[in-house]
Amino acid sequence: MRRSEVCLNALNRRGVYLEDLVECARFLHGPYEDIKDTTIAAVLIDILDKREVENALLCAIEMDELCEKDQYSDKSLQERVLHDDGLFGVDEVLAYGICNIYGSIALTNFGYIDKIKPGIIGKLNEKKEGVCNTFLDDIVGAIAASAASRMAHEKGS
Amino acid sequence: MRRSEVCLNALNRRGVYLEDLVECARFLHGPYEDIKDTTIAAVLIDILDKREVENALLCAIEMDELCEKDQYSDKSLQERVLHDDGLFGVDEVLAYGICNIYGSIALTNFGYIDKIKPGIIGKLNEKKEGVCNTFLDDIVGAIAASAASRMAHEKGS
Amino acid sequence: MRRSEVCLNALNRRGVYLEDLVECARFLHGPYEDIKDTTIAAVLIDILDKREVENALLCAIEMDELCEKDQYSDKSLQERVLHDDGLFGVDEVLAYGICNIYGSIALTNFGYIDKIKPGIIGKLNEKKEGVCNTFLDDIVGAIAASAASRMAHEKGS
Amino acid sequence: MRRSEVCLNALNRRGVYLEDLVECARFLHGPYEDIKDTTIAAVLIDILDKREVENALLCAIEMDELCEKDQYSDKSLQERVLHDDGLFGVDEVLAYGICNIYGSIALTNFGYIDKIKPGIIGKLNEKKEGVCNTFLDDIVGAIAASAASRMAHEKGS
Repeated sequence: MRRSEVCLNALNRRGVYLEDLVECARFLHGPYEDIKDTTIAAVLIDILDKREVENALLCAIEMDELCEKDQYSDKSLQERVLHDDGLFGVDEVLAYGICNIYGSIALTNFGYIDKIKPGIIGKLNEKKEGVCNTFLDDIVGAIAASAASRMAHEKGS
Repeated sequence: MRRSEVCLNALNRRGVYLEDLVECARFLHGPYEDIKDTTIAAVLIDILDKREVENALLCAIEMDELCEKDQYSDKSLQERVLHDDGLFGVDEVLAYGICNIYGSIALTNFGYIDKIKPGIIGKLNEKKEGVCNTFLDDIVGAIAASAASRMAHEKGS
Repeated sequence: MRRSEVCLNALNRRGVYLEDLVECARFLHGPYEDIKDTTIAAVLIDILDKREVENALLCAIEMDELCEKDQYSDKSLQERVLHDDGLFGVDEVLAYGICNIYGSIALTNFGYIDKIKPGIIGKLNEKKEGVCNTFLDDIVGAIAASAASRMAHEKGS
Repeated sequence: MRRSEVCLNALNRRGVYLEDLVECARFLHGPYEDIKDTTIAAVLIDILDKREVENALLCAIEMDELCEKDQYSDKSLQERVLHDDGLFGVDEVLAYGICNIYGSIALTNFGYIDKIKPGIIGKLNEKKEGVCNTFLDDIVGAIAASAASRMAHEKGS
């Protein structure tokens, strides 16, 4: 199975679809270029095929799911992850692991989308009893930011 | 002379004052806390006293000034810096060298302020004949983002 | 409980002691300065008191322990973590989240200690049936690298 | 002119040749794979064709050359750059801007090669009257580290 398939399967299990990623990437890059959904989707799939992206995404989802299942041995950490404490910071560290690969524009885009929280990112960020998307919302933002950076570089070259 | 004095002297020479930095840091942290200008200024001075911050800031200003003076040996690079090409990226790399020291919240804040460009950052970003602030506007954003991150951590602890 | 105590309790549970961290930090900074173990220990405790360090360290240990307990829902990811695949990369991403806070010297030191693997880092890196320290060995390296960077900056100022 | 040509022209002007980069990349990746010089050279050229790499490299060389020519307006900064003060740090920040694009293995490799300083890196690092390679030696290390990371990922996939 291709890496992007593994990633999309894991994302779908958490309620995130390729269309959601396309919408977030369009939010960032749309103002600069008239571009088709299918073109954005192809860029996203290329990103999801990267080993570093797959590993960061799977670890993030694992951390969220194990938190929901009350499996952490450190219950204080589990609480902090469950409540998505703004000062927690490890979720953003994983996200930057992805953005870094796509250059400084990806990092800037991530900071912006992480504040505005459009579309699925806003939905993932809503607190719901028994649901934890603390790591995932940042990963989704990082993937969208990376796609926007790639499109900016391609347009500019 | 203290590092923060060296930094403020260099910033003043380029038309940026401590009050401008306070305004940018307040733009980021103001929504979360009612905080005095003098408290923000103290946090900023602490940041400007850091060796890594001083060195990044001085190099950034040097690059801008040498560009204005037509001193680069690579004229194509000089053009790219002068016109602040959005894909240039080295300006953000220097900015991240500062933000990294203040943790992931500083990076997120930088991405946001770099898109919105409030106050002095917007002014620095305006193109003016013979003036180059390509590196400086990102450094100012990074310093404000770092201050906001520091204040968030202090409030939360 | 202070953050450094929480960190040291978690480290001890995984067989890592303050003396091990002192030894690794000395490995890096020893050639540049004659410095007492107690001074190095004080620098290390200061680092372990940082929120970002505590969170990265606890997440790393959680990931290792949940891997040992066969709790990951993605068994292919669990295999990769258990065997500490050199291309995995997320362990280093967490480590860089710590090093970044201590500046570029911390990053350089980390790269070096991660190749040489002195003392406890080498021990953690040995494969043992049913034991997983894939994330922890990089965190230990990052903490030692950060301490060495702090000592270099203090000596130089 | 292709970006890699621009980069190689600038490197040659500073006494660094493609063969030197090949030697440094082989130093890092050689222990893991029997690989031809031409294959390594092709990987390096691919890296030198990246916009972010070109920009970081040209800025680094510009900073070194303007330092040699006594052109900095801040003479204290010029002194620090000329003497390659170990705590300066901006040179490594530029280098990390390159490494980040090639993932965490590139960062680890950079930390290692920056300590050992094999081949041309050692030569660039020797102090010579009127010569400044403070920025360049780190850029050369970053390019070699990125190439080694790319080769590791290609071998592993």
